[in-house]
Amino acid sequence: MSEILETPYGTRDFLPREAAAKRAIENRLAKLFSEFGYEEVVTPTMEFLETLTNSGAEIESNLFKMFDQNNRTLALHHEMTTPIARLAVSRLKDAPLPLKLSYNTSVFRFRKNQPERQCEFYQAGVELLGVSNAFADAEIIALAAQGLKVSGLKDFTICLGQVEFANGLMEENNLPPNVQTEIKNAIEHHNIVGLKKIVDALNLDKNSADSLKKIPTLHGGIEILETARALAKNQKSIAAINNLQEIYKLAEIYGVADKIIFDLGIIRDFEYYTGMVFEAYAPNVGYSLAGGGRYDHMLKDFGLACPATGFALGIERILTACERQGISNDVQNKNIYISYDENNFGAAIKKASELRAEGKVVEISLTPQTEDDAKKSQVEKNYTELIYLK
Amino acid sequence: MSEILETPYGTRDFLPREAAAKRAIENRLAKLFSEFGYEEVVTPTMEFLETLTNSGAEIESNLFKMFDQNNRTLALHHEMTTPIARLAVSRLKDAPLPLKLSYNTSVFRFRKNQPERQCEFYQAGVELLGVSNAFADAEIIALAAQGLKVSGLKDFTICLGQVEFANGLMEENNLPPNVQTEIKNAIEHHNIVGLKKIVDALNLDKNSADSLKKIPTLHGGIEILETARALAKNQKSIAAINNLQEIYKLAEIYGVADKIIFDLGIIRDFEYYTGMVFEAYAPNVGYSLAGGGRYDHMLKDFGLACPATGFALGIERILTACERQGISNDVQNKNIYISYDENNFGAAIKKASELRAEGKVVEISLTPQTEDDAKKSQVEKNYTELIYLK
Repeated sequence: MSEILETPYGTRDFLPREAAAKRAIENRLAKLFSEFGYEEVVTPTMEFLETLTNSGAEIESNLFKMFDQNNRTLALHHEMTTPIARLAVSRLKDAPLPLKLSYNTSVFRFRKNQPERQCEFYQAGVELLGVSNAFADAEIIALAAQGLKVSGLKDFTICLGQVEFANGLMEENNLPPNVQTEIKNAIEHHNIVGLKKIVDALNLDKNSADSLKKIPTLHGGIEILETARALAKNQKSIAAINNLQEIYKLAEIYGVADKIIFDLGIIRDFEYYTGMVFEAYAPNVGYSLAGGGRYDHMLKDFGLACPATGFALGIERILTACERQGISNDVQNKNIYISYDENNFGAAIKKASELRAEGKVVEISLTPQTEDDAKKSQVEKNYTELIYLK
Repeated sequence: MSEILETPYGTRDFLPREAAAKRAIENRLAKLFSEFGYEEVVTPTMEFLETLTNSGAEIESNLFKMFDQNNRTLALHHEMTTPIARLAVSRLKDAPLPLKLSYNTSVFRFRKNQPERQCEFYQAGVELLGVSNAFADAEIIALAAQGLKVSGLKDFTICLGQVEFANGLMEENNLPPNVQTEIKNAIEHHNIVGLKKIVDALNLDKNSADSLKKIPTLHGGIEILETARALAKNQKSIAAINNLQEIYKLAEIYGVADKIIFDLGIIRDFEYYTGMVFEAYAPNVGYSLAGGGRYDHMLKDFGLACPATGFALGIERILTACERQGISNDVQNKNIYISYDENNFGAAIKKASELRAEGKVVEISLTPQTEDDAKKSQVEKNYTELIYLK
């Protein structure tokens, strides 16, 4: 019997208090995204496997797959950027650019043995399609920061990087693609020893080797950008630094610059990022709460060249972070419990209807009770007030 | 290329206008359910196959199934009554009864060649656990009717039946289980000819045969209940009629009795209903918008005897009904488009922040524009007002 009462590995129930906190945050995010002119879209939970793997990322082994009745392979969406790219290239292809879209849904990934990592988890996010400049990137950073703020979080950091900085340094030294991949992997995993080993084996001049080895250490305030600039002797890396400086200047106007620290070692696990990338962290939570960046090539894979930038916020992770910072998202507002002796159910219905019309949360007892039992029920069910009709 | 741009059979995208209408209805329902003291829960999109098939219903061929990494079979939930029963019997087993729970999610069923029937579709609904009386059933009917009203629908009907009426008539004649199933199938499919054939073959006395054959015709106002009562010579059928009369009396107090017509031929496709059952219809829509009823045995299958009643509303179907009744759920409220000449992006950000703080929906152009182009963008993007900074 107990097995049928379990939920599958990596999935969970949200009990009333948890579901209320989840809905509260999701509604605040939906309102925020809407105020910024982002329109919500909803896509199916499953897509054709070929749609999700179209961008070439090696994700298939992490997907929940199944067959449709024509034996075509479907998979549950593992993120929302790809389905929204599909939508932008198909049914929204004639909509005026830029397209500003938002979503709120669960996504699915197989993950083994990773504590706190769910196989089904909730994301809210936005995609901004059609603009390649820093204005767009700054709006995305500002919206992510505002999103974390309206979720209730006070203490968080946005770690901002730019993948073109490292790309420029590697190209400057004419490194072959396989070596570039090795270096990116080492940087992404903060494997300083591994990075040193790879770079030393390349027999570059000392300055170039030092620059590559320093990438993961380029972490700090705005001053770190000048340190980085001094390491680069190529246009791509310098353009990346200029891009970050421009984003920061705009973030100051948006009032979120105090949340930003720079980290040029951020590569992120998706291969499709082409410009600024960021991850948000809170103290005492060992994983990112949000992440995003610029991905200018993905829509081309679907047949429409179009620059794009966006982010996703992890709802459960934000809830955990709020909890650990002692921030309550308890929005349950149970106002009035109505009970009655025999024959007063009709009167209770009328009273409840009046109070609900005023927006009150009102539960009616569905059996007559003594006044003592009614009081007990009111307390047990956490209602603020009891109305007893006799 | 075109295949990767399709969505799987029976699934759909909601474009911004559709998604906004969907969210508007879902939020109004969530508010209504909350005002009645129903608390939202969220369960995983997938369950173990054994959980979903635990109640013995023959649904497996309609489920979307897949394997987890231990080769256990999972399935996407096809309705929410079963997952909520699982939750009530496990993590909520110590919560004070009655439990009043609500949900809003998509559910999944394979359906072939049925126009307007989606394989993934959205439901909002409630389950009321722990009360077996007509007070509970009346609250459920009232809440379903209010739900259709707050969704914007003006013209709809709730067809109310009671499965125990037909059960009583069949038991009164000592019909064996296989014959009862045949008769229920004929009634459910409004197969009057088939029903006549089955009943005639039973060689019952004329009165009894006539009563059975009349079940599908017992459709109409409150007066139909006396017609039905006259056909029954057993306690079960008479108790069913009394139950409906009591529900109707309470529905009058709730102010929703005008929406009710009785239909003792309603059996519904799930085998688990044990008392009142209902379906909601709107003119010009050839399928039910909502359905529900009492299911007192289901929780016992999970190990806890507990009466229960509830309903689900079909979100897409309500949206279709509203559309066909000319009722707009267009809640897009695009207030202000801000644009600017060179060098005024910073000023635009400040202006937008002020307006958003007042709750306005504000899109900033992400490139400088001429005033003429700004006007064009404002119109194209459906914003009410343009602010141009120069």
